[in-house]
Amino acid sequence: MIYLDNSATTKPYPEVIETAGTVAERYFANPSSAHQLGEEASALLKQARQQIAQILKVRADEVYFTASGTEANNWVLQGIVDALHSKNTDRKRVLLSAIEHPASLQQIELLQRKGYDVDLVPVDQWGRLDTDKLRDMLDEHVLLLSTMAVNNEVGTVQPLAAIAEIIADYPQLIWHVDGVQAVTTELELLRNKRIDLLTLSAHKFHGLRGVGVLVKKERVASYPLLYGGGQEAGQRSSTENLPAIVASAKALRLADDAQAEARRRLHDFRVQLVTALEEAGWQIFGGAYTSTHIVCAALPPIPGEVLLHAFERMGIFVSTTSACSSRSHNPHATLNAMRVSSNISNSAIRLSLSHTTTQADITAFIQALPKVTQMKGKG
Amino acid sequence: MIYLDNSATTKPYPEVIETAGTVAERYFANPSSAHQLGEEASALLKQARQQIAQILKVRADEVYFTASGTEANNWVLQGIVDALHSKNTDRKRVLLSAIEHPASLQQIELLQRKGYDVDLVPVDQWGRLDTDKLRDMLDEHVLLLSTMAVNNEVGTVQPLAAIAEIIADYPQLIWHVDGVQAVTTELELLRNKRIDLLTLSAHKFHGLRGVGVLVKKERVASYPLLYGGGQEAGQRSSTENLPAIVASAKALRLADDAQAEARRRLHDFRVQLVTALEEAGWQIFGGAYTSTHIVCAALPPIPGEVLLHAFERMGIFVSTTSACSSRSHNPHATLNAMRVSSNISNSAIRLSLSHTTTQADITAFIQALPKVTQMKGKG
Repeated sequence: MIYLDNSATTKPYPEVIETAGTVAERYFANPSSAHQLGEEASALLKQARQQIAQILKVRADEVYFTASGTEANNWVLQGIVDALHSKNTDRKRVLLSAIEHPASLQQIELLQRKGYDVDLVPVDQWGRLDTDKLRDMLDEHVLLLSTMAVNNEVGTVQPLAAIAEIIADYPQLIWHVDGVQAVTTELELLRNKRIDLLTLSAHKFHGLRGVGVLVKKERVASYPLLYGGGQEAGQRSSTENLPAIVASAKALRLADDAQAEARRRLHDFRVQLVTALEEAGWQIFGGAYTSTHIVCAALPPIPGEVLLHAFERMGIFVSTTSACSSRSHNPHATLNAMRVSSNISNSAIRLSLSHTTTQADITAFIQALPKVTQMKGKG
Repeated sequence: MIYLDNSATTKPYPEVIETAGTVAERYFANPSSAHQLGEEASALLKQARQQIAQILKVRADEVYFTASGTEANNWVLQGIVDALHSKNTDRKRVLLSAIEHPASLQQIELLQRKGYDVDLVPVDQWGRLDTDKLRDMLDEHVLLLSTMAVNNEVGTVQPLAAIAEIIADYPQLIWHVDGVQAVTTELELLRNKRIDLLTLSAHKFHGLRGVGVLVKKERVASYPLLYGGGQEAGQRSSTENLPAIVASAKALRLADDAQAEARRRLHDFRVQLVTALEEAGWQIFGGAYTSTHIVCAALPPIPGEVLLHAFERMGIFVSTTSACSSRSHNPHATLNAMRVSSNISNSAIRLSLSHTTTQADITAFIQALPKVTQMKGKG
């Protein structure tokens, strides 16, 4: 099986699954319990939080665990936006890049219902946020800007350093970065000191389903999204998912340790893939601005779904678009924002790699490519 | 180790941990992915949903997975209350029993901020919802009533059948039951056909952390709490936590299969505990109305915390109050609602059993009891 759909989800590392099992067995107590078993669980939670903080170069008390990246983004655009607005009712504009994940974009209607002015910052033909437009759109009424670090459909790396520079004139503006796709090889980007809020999702880096992280800097006002027992310093209630959290902290450490090596290797893989696809007449999106682990390509007029199933028959698993978008009836949202015409975007497929992708996987894909490409001639 | 804090959390069954590991390893794909691996994951998810529906005697499309009981209760009191109100803006009253979990009670302020009228239905001296008061409080403006099935601090079983009868005059009223503590031995209560919304939490029945269930009958209008990729029929976005869901469906099946036997056994255990405690001069709360798996008792004037640590030194783990309340600065909320004076409630401890509690555990507790009880004379 050649699995090239890692941006949808990654396969958890065996040692990550094992860690979760061990913690679930040995440290099963509720970290809120006052007895020794609870204290041991609580200490383990603290350690996982510190590990993650250290990797991201933030303070441990700025790391909050959620159940998913989606929950983190919903917390940002609901509880946090409301709290920011309550501190300064003049500020009621929210800016999102046009290519955010549905976990952000699908909240626009709710934001508007509550009276916020929401604007989308456009992207250029490669899927990079248009920094000139951003500059024009900014004013004192913007309370939050949300941008991705790495786009999930095309893989475009966003110009975070340039964005940080532009918003330097608006120190009160809160900047949220959805870093979910960046952990694979762009972890360094997420350490930008200007970032106020950062979303991660463990199952995108060989951690476990059920763990998201929101880094929330001290200065960021917040109402919770989940009220209750007062876990996570009163900001996110629910019994802490300790086994999955500890296991996912381990996965992040593995991702960090292997970062430089994986970056080199996946860069090499990406060059091989792009070269083969271009030679076979495929169109590649995102140009030189993409992360090493995502290739988005099309062979119009063959529909992406037909291409997906053709690869599938050869044991190669790719996707047409993000797994999330495939359900929310907005296929190729990023390609649309890049103004790719629909007769081309309908043919797009995404290959997404991870730290476990091997040269054999890449070679198998390249060997399968001619057979799939032939379909065009036959069409 | 004698673990009598099962209402805080239970130890996951080894076979549940194993199932989660196997699913994480073999069915790791995203259930939203269009390829065969995604379809296999999606089929497994469907199967887990059907299993749970069958046990609860509801339709599979009425079972929604969340990440916790807390999330389910927040969804009810946020997205669902808002949607119900939008359908009929005249209805803006929300009734909660006075002894709900913090995951419900802590949302009152938010409800009030949004303009809802929130009233608490009082309980009697045993912690049972006062059905006469409920009858008086009901009117056409009540859009939602939220009650527990089994209280988490004292263990009182709530009169769900009587409540169902009373609200029969208000067919439009939506009834939410927090069934989190009822799975151990009161599962049958949760099958009441009048219940519109039902919350469960897997880690309370030897399932895994990170899985809650909200049963939402078809007639109940809803806005999501989590927006995004449109999972759970568009009602709850986030990549589905398949390993924990499948494992937790298994745990619920085990709880259901062993229900009658566990009920008998735990009833016997409770009688032994209560007899020993009463003979030793302890005060017991909840009278004859408690579930078989919770005993709440006090030895005033010894503080509950001192009692907890005295048992702890003998390897017995109990709690002073719910793990959740212990953090939210409202200790003994249920005992307060029962009008137990604070000099008595401050001494309360909770013993909570589960399907894995053995006669040896009970015997060990009873043998340790005299030594702890002695403290009173020494005080």
